[in-house]
Amino acid sequence: MKFGGTSVADLACVQRSAKRVVREVHNGKNIVVVVSAMAGGTNHLISKVVETAPVYDAREYDAVVSSGENITAGLMALTLQGMGVPARSWQGWQVPIGTTATHASARITHIETDNILHKFDEGMRVAVVAGFQGISPEYRITTLGRGGSDTTAVALAAALSAEQCQIFTDVDGIYTTDPRICDRAKKLDQIAYEEMLELASMGARVLQTRSIEFAMRNAVRLRVLSSFVDELDSQGTLVCDEEEIMESKVVAGVACSRDEAKLTLISVADRPGIAAMVFSSLSEANVNIDMIVQNIAEKGRTDMTFSCPNDQVGAAEQALIDIRSNGEVRYDELVVDNSVAKVSVVGIGMRSHTGVAAKMFSVLSKEGINIKVITTSEIKISVLIDRKYMELAVQALHDAFELEE
Amino acid sequence: MKFGGTSVADLACVQRSAKRVVREVHNGKNIVVVVSAMAGGTNHLISKVVETAPVYDAREYDAVVSSGENITAGLMALTLQGMGVPARSWQGWQVPIGTTATHASARITHIETDNILHKFDEGMRVAVVAGFQGISPEYRITTLGRGGSDTTAVALAAALSAEQCQIFTDVDGIYTTDPRICDRAKKLDQIAYEEMLELASMGARVLQTRSIEFAMRNAVRLRVLSSFVDELDSQGTLVCDEEEIMESKVVAGVACSRDEAKLTLISVADRPGIAAMVFSSLSEANVNIDMIVQNIAEKGRTDMTFSCPNDQVGAAEQALIDIRSNGEVRYDELVVDNSVAKVSVVGIGMRSHTGVAAKMFSVLSKEGINIKVITTSEIKISVLIDRKYMELAVQALHDAFELEE
Repeated sequence: MKFGGTSVADLACVQRSAKRVVREVHNGKNIVVVVSAMAGGTNHLISKVVETAPVYDAREYDAVVSSGENITAGLMALTLQGMGVPARSWQGWQVPIGTTATHASARITHIETDNILHKFDEGMRVAVVAGFQGISPEYRITTLGRGGSDTTAVALAAALSAEQCQIFTDVDGIYTTDPRICDRAKKLDQIAYEEMLELASMGARVLQTRSIEFAMRNAVRLRVLSSFVDELDSQGTLVCDEEEIMESKVVAGVACSRDEAKLTLISVADRPGIAAMVFSSLSEANVNIDMIVQNIAEKGRTDMTFSCPNDQVGAAEQALIDIRSNGEVRYDELVVDNSVAKVSVVGIGMRSHTGVAAKMFSVLSKEGINIKVITTSEIKISVLIDRKYMELAVQALHDAFELEE
Repeated sequence: MKFGGTSVADLACVQRSAKRVVREVHNGKNIVVVVSAMAGGTNHLISKVVETAPVYDAREYDAVVSSGENITAGLMALTLQGMGVPARSWQGWQVPIGTTATHASARITHIETDNILHKFDEGMRVAVVAGFQGISPEYRITTLGRGGSDTTAVALAAALSAEQCQIFTDVDGIYTTDPRICDRAKKLDQIAYEEMLELASMGARVLQTRSIEFAMRNAVRLRVLSSFVDELDSQGTLVCDEEEIMESKVVAGVACSRDEAKLTLISVADRPGIAAMVFSSLSEANVNIDMIVQNIAEKGRTDMTFSCPNDQVGAAEQALIDIRSNGEVRYDELVVDNSVAKVSVVGIGMRSHTGVAAKMFSVLSKEGINIKVITTSEIKISVLIDRKYMELAVQALHDAFELEE
């Protein structure tokens, strides 16, 4: 059971979350609880580090910012003890949770479970583990990067062969689309790992992408629940292998992302190495490229279009101007359109069903929405459209694919 | 170099303290820095624990409250790095600093220094160690109790055979008496461990008693300095072996303690076991007894007087009423005087010089101050007097023993 920042925001929230744990203990289960820092705690520590050293040693950064989770872990253990449940806290190095030495964004390499299992044998019922952290081969404290507590929870569930891994958050599950955009959005009972991955990378920020990948690789059944809604009212959403999903729709959900920009290089030389040069210069400028489309070449020249977050357009433009001025890449013109949005339909059913793309395009056409860029994966079709049509497109697609039912 | 809470109260204070460290590094020294939590940090964490669990598991308490020092250690290492000094932080378990399993008031049992010394060999110049904490034989985090960072510093200095152990605080040394009471108080250049111990237990709260005992046992030279006064202006006070002190006065200082109370049991049976019964009942009631005086017995009965802090009088009275009502101890009357103060003169010179007590009593008598209780040790004479005369007594004794010169 993993409780995120809003689920342990203050001592009242810790109490509420602890009650969920106690109920499972009374159901006869031994529980590993993973906690984040209290909401805002990590940001406060990060600001202290940045104020101290604008360019900082990531090892010291990790030693400081991991404190937030340690505090919550101790307080959660105390709260559970107060409810009569034998519990204790573990910091990352105590478990230990071994990680790489890539400080501030370490990856878990192994987890020793003997210590926790031994305590369960002795009668302990709840092991409270500080999320987001581990220990490097040099015995320095590491952190796993933003959202790392999800990964801690999934990795522990895998290492302990847990029945399932429950992620408590401030939403009560995964929806067919963003309920703020479409009031007919419906909570899903189940969703496949692959679908969740596509939705997560689209900005449905309920679960960290890495934790979903980890769960998929290790077949950990994930359940997303709200810590603010009683579980008797909602079972949340189970994220699991597609084979577990009995009857799946062709399309599981409609995702959208508002602040996108489209950049086009007009008349680039169409020869090997040019794309590599363009995108490595953008990568060095820390621009996150999403969609990439290249048209058919004519007379040895082509147009190259890609999308990135709106707030990275400046950096992208500068990088592309630089490679032209130093002669690395020639092109006629750089055209920027920073008023686009991305809309995607996602579903594992697309693997076996045809016609999804055709249906999507015809729905958008019927609404008079022009499609600017299209990309597809095995289980996703994404389009860039004018930003002002985003809500309309989401609602129309949600209706057309009958996601409300 | 140990920096207490006020010396690392905020990032500006951390900067100022770091500059003191850098100056020593530039003098060619390798430094171990021990830090406390930022002022108020530990109290904030303690209040969270107490709010969560009024009766708490001390192991979880330790896991939570040790966070404050970890944060300061990381920030201090980052600050030193920013000043161009190779530095890193160590948490108690990383050193490791081994302690007993007496959580919340653990004692240091051993310190492994190989890790730190190895890093010095590799070119590191400053090891920043989180004070106040260690690791138990069960690999749980422990804390050393209030003021424990002083003990961490002294224990590290002993284990590393450091040249000296500098304790930075908000006063610039040890004074002949409290400067707020006597404006002629003078900073001492040197003071013997034994004298410092008597002064510390009298409420001169500059150094924790345990850390002085530890320094004395291990011959660690302690220097008390202010982190707010430039060291070129003040060398603070050296606490050292009496043999190092070239020319010592008979009396080193005058100590005082304002909020004392005197309790007298009138006409107690004078037979073996009675005193044990009285004082074990007071101990169970958590009353800290200081002075104890028993008069000569007459007709098998005696009067028994003792002193305790004023705010413990209620608990003491209750305990004494209880043992009378359950028939354990009989006495005629309990007389409480809660308007007394304690004044002491302290000096290792008393061992070889006679007449100190006589001089003290005559000074007080000349001022018309009545002495209510007297106790003496090898290097200290303490008296209880009316509280309203405390300042007068301190000033008169300070003058009479020529401490200003």
